[in-house]
Amino acid sequence: MRAVRVVEYHKNLELVELPEPEITGPLDVIVRVGGAGVCRTDLHILDGQWADKSQVALPYTIGHENAGWVHAVGSAVTGVVPGDKVILHPLRTCGQCRACRSGDDVHCVASEFPGIDTDGGYAEFLKTSVRSVIKLDNSLEPADVAALADAGLTAYHAVAKANALLRPGQFAVMIGAGGLGHIGVQVFKAISGASLIVVDRNPDALALAADLGADHTVLATADGDHVAQVLALTGDNGAEAVIDFVGEGGATAEGVRMLRRAGSYFVVGYGENINIPTIDIISTEINFVGNLVGSYNDLAELMALAAQAKVTLHTSKYALADFQSALDDLDNGRVRGRAILVP
Amino acid sequence: MRAVRVVEYHKNLELVELPEPEITGPLDVIVRVGGAGVCRTDLHILDGQWADKSQVALPYTIGHENAGWVHAVGSAVTGVVPGDKVILHPLRTCGQCRACRSGDDVHCVASEFPGIDTDGGYAEFLKTSVRSVIKLDNSLEPADVAALADAGLTAYHAVAKANALLRPGQFAVMIGAGGLGHIGVQVFKAISGASLIVVDRNPDALALAADLGADHTVLATADGDHVAQVLALTGDNGAEAVIDFVGEGGATAEGVRMLRRAGSYFVVGYGENINIPTIDIISTEINFVGNLVGSYNDLAELMALAAQAKVTLHTSKYALADFQSALDDLDNGRVRGRAILVP
Amino acid sequence: MRAVRVVEYHKNLELVELPEPEITGPLDVIVRVGGAGVCRTDLHILDGQWADKSQVALPYTIGHENAGWVHAVGSAVTGVVPGDKVILHPLRTCGQCRACRSGDDVHCVASEFPGIDTDGGYAEFLKTSVRSVIKLDNSLEPADVAALADAGLTAYHAVAKANALLRPGQFAVMIGAGGLGHIGVQVFKAISGASLIVVDRNPDALALAADLGADHTVLATADGDHVAQVLALTGDNGAEAVIDFVGEGGATAEGVRMLRRAGSYFVVGYGENINIPTIDIISTEINFVGNLVGSYNDLAELMALAAQAKVTLHTSKYALADFQSALDDLDNGRVRGRAILVP
Amino acid sequence: MRAVRVVEYHKNLELVELPEPEITGPLDVIVRVGGAGVCRTDLHILDGQWADKSQVALPYTIGHENAGWVHAVGSAVTGVVPGDKVILHPLRTCGQCRACRSGDDVHCVASEFPGIDTDGGYAEFLKTSVRSVIKLDNSLEPADVAALADAGLTAYHAVAKANALLRPGQFAVMIGAGGLGHIGVQVFKAISGASLIVVDRNPDALALAADLGADHTVLATADGDHVAQVLALTGDNGAEAVIDFVGEGGATAEGVRMLRRAGSYFVVGYGENINIPTIDIISTEINFVGNLVGSYNDLAELMALAAQAKVTLHTSKYALADFQSALDDLDNGRVRGRAILVP
Repeated sequence: MRAVRVVEYHKNLELVELPEPEITGPLDVIVRVGGAGVCRTDLHILDGQWADKSQVALPYTIGHENAGWVHAVGSAVTGVVPGDKVILHPLRTCGQCRACRSGDDVHCVASEFPGIDTDGGYAEFLKTSVRSVIKLDNSLEPADVAALADAGLTAYHAVAKANALLRPGQFAVMIGAGGLGHIGVQVFKAISGASLIVVDRNPDALALAADLGADHTVLATADGDHVAQVLALTGDNGAEAVIDFVGEGGATAEGVRMLRRAGSYFVVGYGENINIPTIDIISTEINFVGNLVGSYNDLAELMALAAQAKVTLHTSKYALADFQSALDDLDNGRVRGRAILVP
Repeated sequence: MRAVRVVEYHKNLELVELPEPEITGPLDVIVRVGGAGVCRTDLHILDGQWADKSQVALPYTIGHENAGWVHAVGSAVTGVVPGDKVILHPLRTCGQCRACRSGDDVHCVASEFPGIDTDGGYAEFLKTSVRSVIKLDNSLEPADVAALADAGLTAYHAVAKANALLRPGQFAVMIGAGGLGHIGVQVFKAISGASLIVVDRNPDALALAADLGADHTVLATADGDHVAQVLALTGDNGAEAVIDFVGEGGATAEGVRMLRRAGSYFVVGYGENINIPTIDIISTEINFVGNLVGSYNDLAELMALAAQAKVTLHTSKYALADFQSALDDLDNGRVRGRAILVP
Repeated sequence: MRAVRVVEYHKNLELVELPEPEITGPLDVIVRVGGAGVCRTDLHILDGQWADKSQVALPYTIGHENAGWVHAVGSAVTGVVPGDKVILHPLRTCGQCRACRSGDDVHCVASEFPGIDTDGGYAEFLKTSVRSVIKLDNSLEPADVAALADAGLTAYHAVAKANALLRPGQFAVMIGAGGLGHIGVQVFKAISGASLIVVDRNPDALALAADLGADHTVLATADGDHVAQVLALTGDNGAEAVIDFVGEGGATAEGVRMLRRAGSYFVVGYGENINIPTIDIISTEINFVGNLVGSYNDLAELMALAAQAKVTLHTSKYALADFQSALDDLDNGRVRGRAILVP
Repeated sequence: MRAVRVVEYHKNLELVELPEPEITGPLDVIVRVGGAGVCRTDLHILDGQWADKSQVALPYTIGHENAGWVHAVGSAVTGVVPGDKVILHPLRTCGQCRACRSGDDVHCVASEFPGIDTDGGYAEFLKTSVRSVIKLDNSLEPADVAALADAGLTAYHAVAKANALLRPGQFAVMIGAGGLGHIGVQVFKAISGASLIVVDRNPDALALAADLGADHTVLATADGDHVAQVLALTGDNGAEAVIDFVGEGGATAEGVRMLRRAGSYFVVGYGENINIPTIDIISTEINFVGNLVGSYNDLAELMALAAQAKVTLHTSKYALADFQSALDDLDNGRVRGRAILVP
């Protein structure tokens, strides 16, 4: 089969011919890839930024946002059969640790991460486990939803956690209306009765957020007046929740100022430090909540919303052989929505 | 009546004669003070550290940990009658804002804080509201429980929040076994099936914690080996909750290293900053939880534990006229347990 | 002022002239009535069905779904001033018991119920307490929202409790799409990402439910085939929640058959018994959840949804003097939506 | 190996020689049985009461409360190795359905129940799956904890659910201080800060409950005065939770009368119907909560309490060959604590 691989850091990816993966374990599932999301993380991998963290041996196949069709299954697999359309949870988890036994997949003590620390989805076939595949509704196509597997799942997970704290008449602020944010807006409107204020530096991103149902949009500017605007929208009380998809460039300090007493700050984007006096945390009794990608069940729920057309993605599709164009377009800001490789 | 007042910052308190407070509103309650806790905050007030924050007009009567007997009640007061033994929630709340309507008293938008921004309990009588008084069980005496009104309530509130996340076989770390901590240990043992590790720099404090039921104690030392000891006690996983009663001197950075993935850090003590990369927050999905003093219902629950003898305080009692000795003893580390003024 | 009173059971109401109510307590609020809902309970009161339960002394003024304008306030009232548009929570609560201190108003140990056990809103003026008034958004008119004060609040409360258990891809069944149900459908669609199946015996009610956004509607028929239809819609698993606004005529036995393992049955409507073997409860681990009218904060949240036009009521307005026509129309099924008296 | 089997309903069990079970699947675990609880359910099985429900083909080996040592493991097993002491969760679950993916093992859509619908633990060896084994602390012996696998787990699960609703100063009533109840009392005292009232018809059972830490005990009598006694102990308010381990003989009607407004009734024991007017459910807003055996994680938590000596069982041990004596003693009320077969 054809696969696109990292052969060396700081060098272009290469398309090579590889043997097809084979079933070796009872819970294995081989997926014929129908769509693999091209993500900014892939550029970071090529730059070597993940080398230490992933400890992956080169060469390997990248691609961590994958969907396709079941091609073959191990002897103990139930629930899916060859031909089924599936999306893949980004992690391959052990199923036996306490976290796995709690439905808290992302804290599995022995997980693998295809596309990051083992072979991923820029290929015709991908080997995973039954613990990572979710059947798609007939109305959905793998290439259309692949990018929900990681970026979408992260947005869903954070928004669902925030929404559990919110009631009608209360406010959430979403900082960042880009890749994660525009999914987050759709999820929020699908599941929440609270009001949503979206903040971004890009007027086009705000226009899209408004189209997708954001109740209020606020343009972030150099002078920081957007904090005051957000506070004014909340009746000068601040928001019960801030969901920060940015996490750099001063976003966190500004975002904290948008919180109401007893409010919660959902950290999703990253880059800078949270740096705040403990006296400010206790005197207002605010909280900071970490957010990683969601669980397997979270992804199943997101797929339910997608099947109901409540969450949709704009995608630009590329043939697998055109992987370099996809990466170049992403790197140069020329992709509308998400770039997807279609083998 | 006699009252002890702040007459000027950086000057000693003075004992003066004042008219007794009178019922002027329908929900007013006049309490004959039976015990007023002498707290480190009182020393800070005299140093002027609270002047800006409280904006209190001098002179005024200090004392924010109060218990006694109901002396007179307003026309709309129900639930207590003159003669009842009561402890006072530290705040006098409005009862009409959404926070008050949610049982979330400490976020009342219009509260007063007797002893901090209005007349407190270093006096024979104190005026409060029916919203702040809780009847004591017959087995309890005001002077014995007064110090639970603020320090105890803060410890109870934080421990109860942490315990809601904990299950048998899991671990909480408590940093600091002093004034709040030694109450926290008792509360934890009374309400939790999880295991408790107490960390302190003082071997005597640890010995007391062990007496009170701490499952493990770890001496904090300059070389930081205590972090490793805590991790070892948790099977190298870290604790599901850290309750930090210190919040300064490097406690928070060390405490965060004691957390398990998806663990929660309860900030109670304050002084330094929480300063942590967002990437560390999201990659382990940890949380930071602010904690202020508890609610009225929290205090009622703490009094239930006190009546059941599950939480007790060591106290050193002083006559009201000996206020200066009490403050001097506190300032010089000569108080065993908590100092209480008994008018 | 004019008021419509129960003078004797099994006799018509009478319009009489009464003195206006006056402020006598510090938390009193006098409301000029802008709309009073005419409810089936009012017919039951006249039939004497509530006589034993309410122990009200005749004559008295009925009307328990009220909204209007603040006319006068007691000395300790904050948050509202004369002229403010308000809706009234159905209960007048004490504010001092543990339930009140928890935001759990309906379990107040000393509440009154205007229109049921004390003078209500079929009148020009009504005396209540600041604890019962909620300011309306400018966009709302008292006569348009009055009927949300009780029927709407009950539906909101039950739907919000059920929704806390539901996730996208899961199912709620709503039994009954009448007075409460058609509000319940709107609330559900405003706050939930789960799917809603509405069951009713009346095709017109189902058509309205579908208009309001119900995902599926199922006609209840004598042969009980609707249970099978509901199960089929849920993939033969059953629904995670059933919200029963009927509670009689066999609805509960049928409704329980629609539940999934570990599902929850929300009892709202009443009439018959829940009668089920304990073995059936434990072997499937299902739950039954009682639902009364909601809290003050619930009503504030419902008003937020109303202000956002997410919940609207059809109303038929009658002058106060036409009270008999309103009751007759209600009794004879001639009211479209809810009948409202406008003094 | 030797095994004790059901050969025909209404006939005695028979001890036979069988081949040892073998590893056939990658997740299989063969356990050398160290203790198998003899349970009243085993008597019911022999009476044929479970024949329809289990559809088990005779002959088969009974015994559903099992602990022992790992003897052999399949190729994909992690976390346990031969020689490890383990207790067995009563169900063998699929690991792939949504319930399993949520940690909600007992609602697995494809579980087996060794000892009920497939071969169980009255034998020298038992075949199970890695999903069912929990490593024991060194301080625990299989024969001492085997009976916690089902009866203990059920009690733990119900008490932990109830405790999540309880705060210090509040009350739980436990109906029945027998097999489940005496474990329930120990669990309650280990994890809860609320007060416990135990009701039983047997003064000896109450004496044991008091020894184990019950705060109050009340003797149930024919005249029903115990309901009044329970109410008196709760200040005439009723209990926030009733945990009913009996479920027959009128227990449920009496138990409901012990509930406070907004209280919750935990159904664990079974036999009679819950039969209650919906008006009573809604007017007091009470709840009924079904309880089955607990999850895998629940059992791990219970084993943590056992390792801490917070939960202990009285056991009477019998050699495997003496199975008939064990059953006879159980049937005739001659077993102190729980009977355990030790192969």
